[in-house]
Amino acid sequence: MRSPEQYLEGLRDGREVWYRGERVDDVTAHPELAIAARHGSLDFHGPSDGPSPFYDLPRSADDLRRRSALIEESTTRGATLVVLLKEIGTDALFALHRVTHGTDTYGRVEAFYRHCRDGDLALAVAQTDVKGNRSLGPAGQADPDLYVRVTERRDDGIVVRGAKVHTSCTPNVDEVVVIPTRALAEDERDWAVAFAVPVATPGVKLICSDYLHGADDAWAMPVSSRHKMVETLTVFDDVFVPWERVFLDGDTERAGRLALTFVEYHRLTAVSYKLPLVDAFVGLGALLAEANGITRAGHVRDKLTWLIAYAESVRALTHLACDRARVDEATGLAYPDPLTTNLAKWTFARDYYGAVERVVDLAGGLLVTGVGGADWESPELRPYVEKYFAGAVPAAERLALLNLASDLCARSYAGYQGVLAVHAEGSLEAEKLMIYRSYDPRPATLLARRLAGLES
Amino acid sequence: MRSPEQYLEGLRDGREVWYRGERVDDVTAHPELAIAARHGSLDFHGPSDGPSPFYDLPRSADDLRRRSALIEESTTRGATLVVLLKEIGTDALFALHRVTHGTDTYGRVEAFYRHCRDGDLALAVAQTDVKGNRSLGPAGQADPDLYVRVTERRDDGIVVRGAKVHTSCTPNVDEVVVIPTRALAEDERDWAVAFAVPVATPGVKLICSDYLHGADDAWAMPVSSRHKMVETLTVFDDVFVPWERVFLDGDTERAGRLALTFVEYHRLTAVSYKLPLVDAFVGLGALLAEANGITRAGHVRDKLTWLIAYAESVRALTHLACDRARVDEATGLAYPDPLTTNLAKWTFARDYYGAVERVVDLAGGLLVTGVGGADWESPELRPYVEKYFAGAVPAAERLALLNLASDLCARSYAGYQGVLAVHAEGSLEAEKLMIYRSYDPRPATLLARRLAGLES
Amino acid sequence: MRSPEQYLEGLRDGREVWYRGERVDDVTAHPELAIAARHGSLDFHGPSDGPSPFYDLPRSADDLRRRSALIEESTTRGATLVVLLKEIGTDALFALHRVTHGTDTYGRVEAFYRHCRDGDLALAVAQTDVKGNRSLGPAGQADPDLYVRVTERRDDGIVVRGAKVHTSCTPNVDEVVVIPTRALAEDERDWAVAFAVPVATPGVKLICSDYLHGADDAWAMPVSSRHKMVETLTVFDDVFVPWERVFLDGDTERAGRLALTFVEYHRLTAVSYKLPLVDAFVGLGALLAEANGITRAGHVRDKLTWLIAYAESVRALTHLACDRARVDEATGLAYPDPLTTNLAKWTFARDYYGAVERVVDLAGGLLVTGVGGADWESPELRPYVEKYFAGAVPAAERLALLNLASDLCARSYAGYQGVLAVHAEGSLEAEKLMIYRSYDPRPATLLARRLAGLES
Amino acid sequence: MRSPEQYLEGLRDGREVWYRGERVDDVTAHPELAIAARHGSLDFHGPSDGPSPFYDLPRSADDLRRRSALIEESTTRGATLVVLLKEIGTDALFALHRVTHGTDTYGRVEAFYRHCRDGDLALAVAQTDVKGNRSLGPAGQADPDLYVRVTERRDDGIVVRGAKVHTSCTPNVDEVVVIPTRALAEDERDWAVAFAVPVATPGVKLICSDYLHGADDAWAMPVSSRHKMVETLTVFDDVFVPWERVFLDGDTERAGRLALTFVEYHRLTAVSYKLPLVDAFVGLGALLAEANGITRAGHVRDKLTWLIAYAESVRALTHLACDRARVDEATGLAYPDPLTTNLAKWTFARDYYGAVERVVDLAGGLLVTGVGGADWESPELRPYVEKYFAGAVPAAERLALLNLASDLCARSYAGYQGVLAVHAEGSLEAEKLMIYRSYDPRPATLLARRLAGLES
Repeated sequence: MRSPEQYLEGLRDGREVWYRGERVDDVTAHPELAIAARHGSLDFHGPSDGPSPFYDLPRSADDLRRRSALIEESTTRGATLVVLLKEIGTDALFALHRVTHGTDTYGRVEAFYRHCRDGDLALAVAQTDVKGNRSLGPAGQADPDLYVRVTERRDDGIVVRGAKVHTSCTPNVDEVVVIPTRALAEDERDWAVAFAVPVATPGVKLICSDYLHGADDAWAMPVSSRHKMVETLTVFDDVFVPWERVFLDGDTERAGRLALTFVEYHRLTAVSYKLPLVDAFVGLGALLAEANGITRAGHVRDKLTWLIAYAESVRALTHLACDRARVDEATGLAYPDPLTTNLAKWTFARDYYGAVERVVDLAGGLLVTGVGGADWESPELRPYVEKYFAGAVPAAERLALLNLASDLCARSYAGYQGVLAVHAEGSLEAEKLMIYRSYDPRPATLLARRLAGLES
Repeated sequence: MRSPEQYLEGLRDGREVWYRGERVDDVTAHPELAIAARHGSLDFHGPSDGPSPFYDLPRSADDLRRRSALIEESTTRGATLVVLLKEIGTDALFALHRVTHGTDTYGRVEAFYRHCRDGDLALAVAQTDVKGNRSLGPAGQADPDLYVRVTERRDDGIVVRGAKVHTSCTPNVDEVVVIPTRALAEDERDWAVAFAVPVATPGVKLICSDYLHGADDAWAMPVSSRHKMVETLTVFDDVFVPWERVFLDGDTERAGRLALTFVEYHRLTAVSYKLPLVDAFVGLGALLAEANGITRAGHVRDKLTWLIAYAESVRALTHLACDRARVDEATGLAYPDPLTTNLAKWTFARDYYGAVERVVDLAGGLLVTGVGGADWESPELRPYVEKYFAGAVPAAERLALLNLASDLCARSYAGYQGVLAVHAEGSLEAEKLMIYRSYDPRPATLLARRLAGLES
Repeated sequence: MRSPEQYLEGLRDGREVWYRGERVDDVTAHPELAIAARHGSLDFHGPSDGPSPFYDLPRSADDLRRRSALIEESTTRGATLVVLLKEIGTDALFALHRVTHGTDTYGRVEAFYRHCRDGDLALAVAQTDVKGNRSLGPAGQADPDLYVRVTERRDDGIVVRGAKVHTSCTPNVDEVVVIPTRALAEDERDWAVAFAVPVATPGVKLICSDYLHGADDAWAMPVSSRHKMVETLTVFDDVFVPWERVFLDGDTERAGRLALTFVEYHRLTAVSYKLPLVDAFVGLGALLAEANGITRAGHVRDKLTWLIAYAESVRALTHLACDRARVDEATGLAYPDPLTTNLAKWTFARDYYGAVERVVDLAGGLLVTGVGGADWESPELRPYVEKYFAGAVPAAERLALLNLASDLCARSYAGYQGVLAVHAEGSLEAEKLMIYRSYDPRPATLLARRLAGLES
Repeated sequence: MRSPEQYLEGLRDGREVWYRGERVDDVTAHPELAIAARHGSLDFHGPSDGPSPFYDLPRSADDLRRRSALIEESTTRGATLVVLLKEIGTDALFALHRVTHGTDTYGRVEAFYRHCRDGDLALAVAQTDVKGNRSLGPAGQADPDLYVRVTERRDDGIVVRGAKVHTSCTPNVDEVVVIPTRALAEDERDWAVAFAVPVATPGVKLICSDYLHGADDAWAMPVSSRHKMVETLTVFDDVFVPWERVFLDGDTERAGRLALTFVEYHRLTAVSYKLPLVDAFVGLGALLAEANGITRAGHVRDKLTWLIAYAESVRALTHLACDRARVDEATGLAYPDPLTTNLAKWTFARDYYGAVERVVDLAGGLLVTGVGGADWESPELRPYVEKYFAGAVPAAERLALLNLASDLCARSYAGYQGVLAVHAEGSLEAEKLMIYRSYDPRPATLLARRLAGLES
């Protein structure tokens, strides 16, 4: 394993990164992107021998449980923000192993996997195409580049063009793994492509989202001022990829399978890394009730119970998704039970805003009308702030809790988590679709037919 | 294990049973109570050596899983209606073992347990007192008998008076186990009583509910015409109980603990026996959609997915409640994780009416405007019924499904299941209270304090 | 206006009615159908001069409010069960006026309207075709009779064949009005038919649903033992209809319009007649809480508040649907605002089961485990029943409330109301569709475009 | 009426305003507070004769409707952010008229009202005390100043000390009206105080919330970069108030009544000014679906319908709250029906987060991963942004909609609106309490008793 410093050193490689309209020379030195890079370094614990446990290939339910716990733990260190530098990349590597098994490119996947593991690399995964008009497939778009595609096949490799959105952490990883976003029709072979390239590859342009810009008050935003993840529009402007880094080219059936297999692993990652956030809601709700002096009200108890049930249902289903692991015969790789994984993810996602509302309810309106760090630091104002914001606990403690609640449930970071709950790692509708598809209806319909007297 | 016939034979013992205002001589010969008795006989598989597996004392997670599966299976045979002749009684016996351990009466519990197991007895459990004004405890009631109490302590035993409600299956079991309904104050020693008596004991009067009376059309009510469970107001009219059958007398602390410990086991029983019902909703929903020719509508898919997620969430939490078993050190008895058990039960209960609504939605209005068995049998009417009630499948099949849906989701049996979902084995509020109490808030509050900067 | 007796006399006319497989000679003398007939007679207040106010043609918001209040009041007399003998028929007559205006048959509609009004007739409306496979239209069905259709056009009239389901009150009305169930394609002219016939017309066969059979315990079922509405499969077995009773024949465009126009009026009728039921939930909830001694619990207050908000939201939207009346220019007839009417109906329907659950929660498990009228009447049992079912009020009062709750929220009548909430007068999906369609999106999209800077 | 410029000129008066730890000399010149001041100027339409219509005393349902429409319209100009400079102040003035009628201070209220109306003043209302430990009343707090109180009564007036939170717009109004926050006990006379002072009064210190700081990208935040409302901790540091400005002093009964009467008006104001926001959700949802090319999906239609029903239910109940106006006999002042007003507010508040979730769902993840204004303006990046963010409409249009959605549903302004939905103008629990209290249960309980046979 590399040390945080070794990791950061690796990011200074001339990569093309744009932030707020300007080219960034060194992401580790940029005032905002450096926060993301330092957050990313939480996934590095070296220098030490032996690979990072994130790279362990899961072969059993226990392996999946360990992996889930590892993700939960690293996100706790990330203060509810997933670190994701190895989590998502290994999800993709596991999926690539399974989907390419039996094909010519399996060896390339294995080699790339060893390269990443042995180098303790940080990986981004670019999956979601920009898609254009969503009612049309890749081949139906006005512009064929709206899904990443192969524009040229050469002796030494392929050339790709297009762009992916929502690629997390791209500015501060070593390599980006690119996989298809959806099932494809037979005549959409040029879009059936999966590969990996170093971020600094010519033609790879990262246009960063500055959505989390402005979290500059560490007192008022205890989480988002210190932790950041940056998404990019990841442009592939006629990027050359050598054959040893091409994992899929033209196999439309495997393209769809790869998209789903990745998601299978990635939704377990998702529910694992949501646990610190939902736990924080429970703890924060309880502490806010105490700080406000309202713990004895019936409705307060009711809201806390709801938050507990929410957090613990997500945790229970996440654990069970691991425990019900299945093993892919060909590769021996374990994967979480799809139905249970999607139940966990849907349970998390559909009630997320309800959880936010309850924490907001317990906290009070000060979440958005309170004072900032400069007021707290001001010698003229501090006496008033301390006097008038005391609750059942001193103002310093109450405001610390309110600031955390504002950061998690009201400010931009809250909106970030809310939108992620609805869309990241699959939308609500996608989760419902997978629940429907991964359920075997035969026992239930047989039971109903028997009860109706239609079967003996 | 006894045979069904041996079991039925045992019920002819002069017990005092009242149904619709009349004394019943022989419950196995009564037109309605016999249906309940035959339903109860589904728990008997002998004659054979060896005790019924319901009596196995659980000592591990695996034991609890086996027990849960056994309950699910017997309820499937009961066509969604729990059989309950050994399920609930053993819940009480396990709880009695744990709570009396270390006291003088532990030996009596063991002896009674062996008596039941070796005789393969059917047991009812009478827990819920009639309670009078619920804002008052036993000692505060205008009438002290509104909670079952000891009115006399003699050399050879005690005399009890009072009544329990909601006692299931009492008319067709061998013995009734009586336990307290709630925590008691120190001055409420006379109400801190637990014991067991044969149903035919003098002074025990069973006033049956006839709520499910009238299910006489086997075509229209495929479940409730064939399966029945009868609840009683179980009156103890100065009933004498010999000391060897008295398990608790005057220990108010243990009384409360016994009430909760029983419920701990019994809620796992409850969620286990709800699984065939929620599965039937899923299967029925799918078959009805097919029969009506509406499977391709988006809202239909959405409702089916919701039903699947509902049923499988309850199942997942039930399984995990077993897997997370804890073991009582003193007795070595395993019990399901209280938090997970209550999550399972609450998940089942809070969405039950929502599940009913969705099946009703998929079925159509014919649930309550359709024809009856006599119409189906009528040579004049059959041609019209067959012609006009055909859907995407023949009328015979569609009507069989609609009749099942009407029985499960609209008729009296549906209301029975609905009220049970809200109240049986603990109300919604009781489940929420146990979720709140069985949750350890320290990790979550510590996390929140750390995130807020209040802990290093 | 006719007297109840005059109305009942009119039902003895040889009509072909079948109940539980048997032909019924006289519906006013049949033990069960007579209950429905007597319930129907609540719409008759004569003998007196002047027509029934139900027949008043609405010309203003005030007229619609009066009509809504009239329906609410008659349903209150019906003990939460709508009487419906003039309510639904006039809905159809108003719609027929509007849709046939400007066509040759308008005069027939006017004449039929005067016939009904002046004779103070009771009318059923048969709209819902049996439909067969719902994914197909009338012309696509294996059997063309699955939607009522014209099989012959003669000099003196037409011959129709087919069947309608869910026709309410048919056995005890004078005439049945038949209208199309849905929009039709241009090649479906034979199904574009609307007409009226006396119930006793040859070929009209009424196969009654016996769904509400068995409500024979007046103590335990205070509502359903005294009030009944009967639905029929209404078969038209080559029924001849003279031209003066044919209101639509072959006009597919007007057929769809008639279906919708009727529903526009009928949904206002529906929400008007639901008000006594939802009010009863509120009152019953409050009285049950009191009887059980739980009024001071926070969750009880919360449930009562929810029930109040539910009932009053439905009432508010119903009133406003009238107040926002629109007037059809051609005929001068007023009709309720479609958007508001559908909002009212949807608000009622989508939360109905949630309301039931809350009343059940406040009532307790006795709803389905309590005793019956025979037990209450039994001199041996009464002392126990009185002693042990007392709450914070005497047993007689508490049980009266519990019996009402059981009737409204658990027994067959409860299921009847539940299924009606989901399906009658348009399903949940149909209501949502009409909300979507009757909403003018232009102001909202213009506002959003302005806020987005896309419009100046 | 004054002109916007006249209004702004009036704010340069030496008031003590603190923002981000620094004293602000001139709020109309400060880079952020000036945005709030300019937003406030939307309530000024002069110079012209005649008072602002906001000052019209409502005397009928029509007056309330006009007032509601006026508020809706001014908020539309405010781009979903209420302007509030006259809205809330007149709510307080109406309440003061009603509550002081018949007392000595009524003349002072009238004089102050004329002063404000004739001067076309902007008013803030400071109601919510800081409250300390919420389980205790004013007299029970460790610090008596945690509710604003009279510390001295002099010949010429009173001296007050304490602080209010959540006071909106204080930095840019002319006068602040102070009223009690809750019912008081008899021994809490010193806290029973209502008065008004110019903002620039010595001892009045405004410590501003900078919660909405950072909205500096007009392209990415089309609403919040241009519109702002600022809340203050409003400190009264031994402020002298002359008697003619003291409206209540020591009358604890009227103190509670004033708190509630103000809220009665203010909740109507609240639901009136929420209408543009909920309309924007509907319009935005529809436009986003179109821009993304997903309008034909069933779930999209379902979400749009839900949003329509939500917006139109709030509007309907708001209108009806006016239409059902009641008139205070003593003053002739009309006020909205309390039950209906609270139904409207609760309907708005309880489903607000559900509405946000649906818009987020229709928009997509780009809400929080998209690019900013500097990227859009960059000549190097624009081609990529235009190419890859096109949907079913060009990127410029799609991104304008996404930016609006991000501002309304994800960024800090979204959180501001979310927290306001839960807490402002009364929390969810407060609204439920008022629904419960303003409902007359007698008709419903009488109906239920009749149905139960307990009344003849």
